[in-house]
Amino acid sequence: MSSSVSPLAPTEVPEMPEIAGVRLATAEAGIRYKGRTDVLLAVLDKGTAVAGVFTRSKCPSAPVEWCRAQLKSGKARALVVNSGNANAFTGKTGKQSTTLTARIAAKAVGCRPNEVFLASTGVIGEPLDATKFDGVLDALAGSAAPGDWMSAARAIMTTDTFPKVATAKVKLGKATVTINGMAKGAGMIAPDMATMLSFVFTDAPIAPAALQSLLKNGVEDTFNAITIDGDTSTSDTLLFFATGAAAANGAPKISRASDPRLKAFTEALQTLLADLSEQVARDGEGARKLVEIIVEGATTKASARKIAMSIANSPLVKTAIAGEDANWGRVVMAVGKAGEPANRDKLSIAFNGIRVAKSGARDPSYNEAEVSEAMKNPKIQIKVGLGLGKGRDRVLTCDLTKEYVAINGDYRS
Amino acid sequence: MSSSVSPLAPTEVPEMPEIAGVRLATAEAGIRYKGRTDVLLAVLDKGTAVAGVFTRSKCPSAPVEWCRAQLKSGKARALVVNSGNANAFTGKTGKQSTTLTARIAAKAVGCRPNEVFLASTGVIGEPLDATKFDGVLDALAGSAAPGDWMSAARAIMTTDTFPKVATAKVKLGKATVTINGMAKGAGMIAPDMATMLSFVFTDAPIAPAALQSLLKNGVEDTFNAITIDGDTSTSDTLLFFATGAAAANGAPKISRASDPRLKAFTEALQTLLADLSEQVARDGEGARKLVEIIVEGATTKASARKIAMSIANSPLVKTAIAGEDANWGRVVMAVGKAGEPANRDKLSIAFNGIRVAKSGARDPSYNEAEVSEAMKNPKIQIKVGLGLGKGRDRVLTCDLTKEYVAINGDYRS
Repeated sequence: MSSSVSPLAPTEVPEMPEIAGVRLATAEAGIRYKGRTDVLLAVLDKGTAVAGVFTRSKCPSAPVEWCRAQLKSGKARALVVNSGNANAFTGKTGKQSTTLTARIAAKAVGCRPNEVFLASTGVIGEPLDATKFDGVLDALAGSAAPGDWMSAARAIMTTDTFPKVATAKVKLGKATVTINGMAKGAGMIAPDMATMLSFVFTDAPIAPAALQSLLKNGVEDTFNAITIDGDTSTSDTLLFFATGAAAANGAPKISRASDPRLKAFTEALQTLLADLSEQVARDGEGARKLVEIIVEGATTKASARKIAMSIANSPLVKTAIAGEDANWGRVVMAVGKAGEPANRDKLSIAFNGIRVAKSGARDPSYNEAEVSEAMKNPKIQIKVGLGLGKGRDRVLTCDLTKEYVAINGDYRS
Repeated sequence: MSSSVSPLAPTEVPEMPEIAGVRLATAEAGIRYKGRTDVLLAVLDKGTAVAGVFTRSKCPSAPVEWCRAQLKSGKARALVVNSGNANAFTGKTGKQSTTLTARIAAKAVGCRPNEVFLASTGVIGEPLDATKFDGVLDALAGSAAPGDWMSAARAIMTTDTFPKVATAKVKLGKATVTINGMAKGAGMIAPDMATMLSFVFTDAPIAPAALQSLLKNGVEDTFNAITIDGDTSTSDTLLFFATGAAAANGAPKISRASDPRLKAFTEALQTLLADLSEQVARDGEGARKLVEIIVEGATTKASARKIAMSIANSPLVKTAIAGEDANWGRVVMAVGKAGEPANRDKLSIAFNGIRVAKSGARDPSYNEAEVSEAMKNPKIQIKVGLGLGKGRDRVLTCDLTKEYVAINGDYRS
C-alpha cells in the first residue's frame, strides 16, 4: 500500500447510507498484510439477486471461475472479499480454497455454498490458505451491520491510496431506492473489466436477468472505458447485488431491463459506475494527472474506442503528459498505430481545449507558451478529431510517472 | 541524445569494410542539433537495386510515402537521411519538402529524383526546411567516399546512445560478397517494422524483386520481433540496397529469392538483421536489461508471437524486471490478456533457466534466493511453456525503468 494519497483523490467523500438487506463486517485475517483489515463479509438478505461481469483473461483467478459458475442461479446470500492474495494461478489448490471458503461462509451465514460469492485481490501464484477464514467469518456474520461502508471499501484495498465509494438515491415507481458502490483499482487496469474489484448494492427489487443486462450496459462506457497500463488482471470482478428490500416501501418488482420505470435508476447507476471508475483512474499507480481522451469523427464508436485506447495506452503519450509536454506528435503516432481508419491530412488535436494541430499539420495559430501553461493542470483532456464520420468515444487514463515504475519495481519484494 | 552509453551496448564494434558501389558522406546541416552531424548521403552506383519495408502506421511520415512510391522501379542512386526532424504530420509542406530534397540530391548526384530514397527521424510535426540541404548535398556528393561507416551510423542517431552497425562476408557462387548494415532505434519501437531506421547494403548482384523477398523474410524474426514500448513510429524504414558490383568479381546475377545459390547469403543476411535488431533492443530508452521472451507449446507460431509480444509489452512485467523481481504472476497475467489459446493448468514459466511455475501453479522446488540472484544478470530470459502444440516464437525487449520515463518526459522540451 502506498503511503501517500494520490493528489487526484476526490476532495469530498459522500456519506454512505445504509441499504436494507445488506450487512457488512471487516476483519484482520492476516492473509498477507499486518495491522490492517483484509477480509470483507457482506451478508445479504434472502431473495437477493446478483449479476456480474468479469475479466476476459484466459488465465482467470479461482474466485472468478467460482463466481461465473454460481452466477447461473442469480441468487446471492453472501460476499467474501480478501485482499493480499489473489488466489490466481494456484492450480487445484486454488479451486479447493474457493470451495472451502464458500463452505465456511455458508455455515456462518446460514445459506448454501453456491449462494456465496468470492473475490480475492493481491499477489498472484501464492496459495491462499482458506482455513484462515475459519472462525473469522463466523465472528463477522455475528457482527455484520448495515452501517460502515468506508471500512468495507478500505478492507479490499491493495496499492490503492484511497477507498473508493459512491452512492445514489433515485425513484423507482413511487419509492426511493438506494445504490451504493465500492471499488478497488490501482495497477493492472485495462479494458474488458477495468477495475480489479467493484461491488454495487441496491435495495431495488430487480430480477437477475434484468440486473445482468443493466450491469452489462453500464460498464461499457465506464469501467470498460478506463485504462491505467493496458494490463488486464486475472481477477477483475464487478458484482451487482439487488436485495429487493425496497419492495416493502412500494418499489415495483422489475423483471426486464427495458422496463420504462427503470429510466431514472439506469441513469443513476450509469453515473455511479462512471464515478467509481473515474476514481480508479484517479488512483492509477503513481498517477499525477487524470487524462480524458475524446476521439470524434471516427467511422464508428468502436473505431473511436480503439483509437482512444491506443492513445491512452501509449507509454510515449503517457510519459509526455507526466512531463507536462503537449507532445501531439506522439498522439499522431498513437492514432497511426491503432490500425483504424484515419486520414493524416484531416486530423486535428487539442489539449485542454487549445487546438495544436489541424488538417494534418501544426495549427499555425498554436501558441506553445499557452499550451505549456495548460499542461500544468492536474486534469488533461486530449481531443482528437478524425474528420471521417460520426463515431465518438471517451476513455479515461492517467499519466506514466517514475513513481509507477518505482511502485511496480518492488511491489512483490 | 542521452549522455551515457547504454550498459547493454555491445563491447566489440566490428571493422566495417567498404562495399563496392557505395560511397558515404555526412555533414552538419543544423536541422535541429548543434555540434553534431545530422545528414547522411549515400551515393550508389548505377544499377543498384533497392527493396524496402516500412511502418504500418496509418499516419506515416512524408519520407515513408516518398519511398513507397519510388520503390516500384526497384532502382536507387542515392539515399539521404536526416536526424532531428521526422518530417511527419507536416501536411502538404512535408510532401513539398521530400520532393525538394530529392531534387537537390538528384542534381548533386547526377540522377533522377525518383532514384533518390529519403528517411527522416526526430521530432514529429515540425516542418522540415529542405532548403537547408541546398549546397550541403552538393558538397557531400563531392566528398562521398567508401570508407566511414561509423560516421554514417552516428549521423542518423537521435536518442540512441551508441551507433549500430553489423557486417558479414559470404560466398555467392565463387565470389565473396559483403553485407553492411546500420540502424537507429531507441524509443517508439514496436513490431511491424521495429526500428525507426535501418539501411543495409551489399555488392551482391540481386534483382529488386528477389531483394524485396529476402528482406521481407529477413525482418519477420528480427526487426519485427523486437519491441521497446509497443509504440509504432510514423517513420519506420528499412531499406536494402544491392549495388551488384560483385558481378565484376564473378558473383552470379540472382533474379529469384529461391535461387539455391543464395543459401549462405540468406543466412548471413538473417544473422546481420538479428544482430542489428538486437542492438536496437539493447539501446531501448533507459534500458538496463535485455529481455528475451521465448514462448513454446503454443497452437501456432503466430499465436506464440502474440503471447510473447503481450509479455514483452506489459508495463508490469517490464517494471518487475527493472526491479530484478522474477514476478511470474505478471507473466501469467500477460499470457492471459493476449487472448490466444492458453490453459492455465498446463502453463510453465522459467526465468534464466530456473523453472518457477509448472502445471498452473508455483513450482514446489522453486528457490526464491536462486531466482533473485539470476535476476541480477543484465540479460533475462523468460521462457513460457503452454503445453498445447508446437508453436514457438521468440521476441526481444528491454526493461521499463525510471530513466525511460525521464527521457520521454522531457525529450521535446
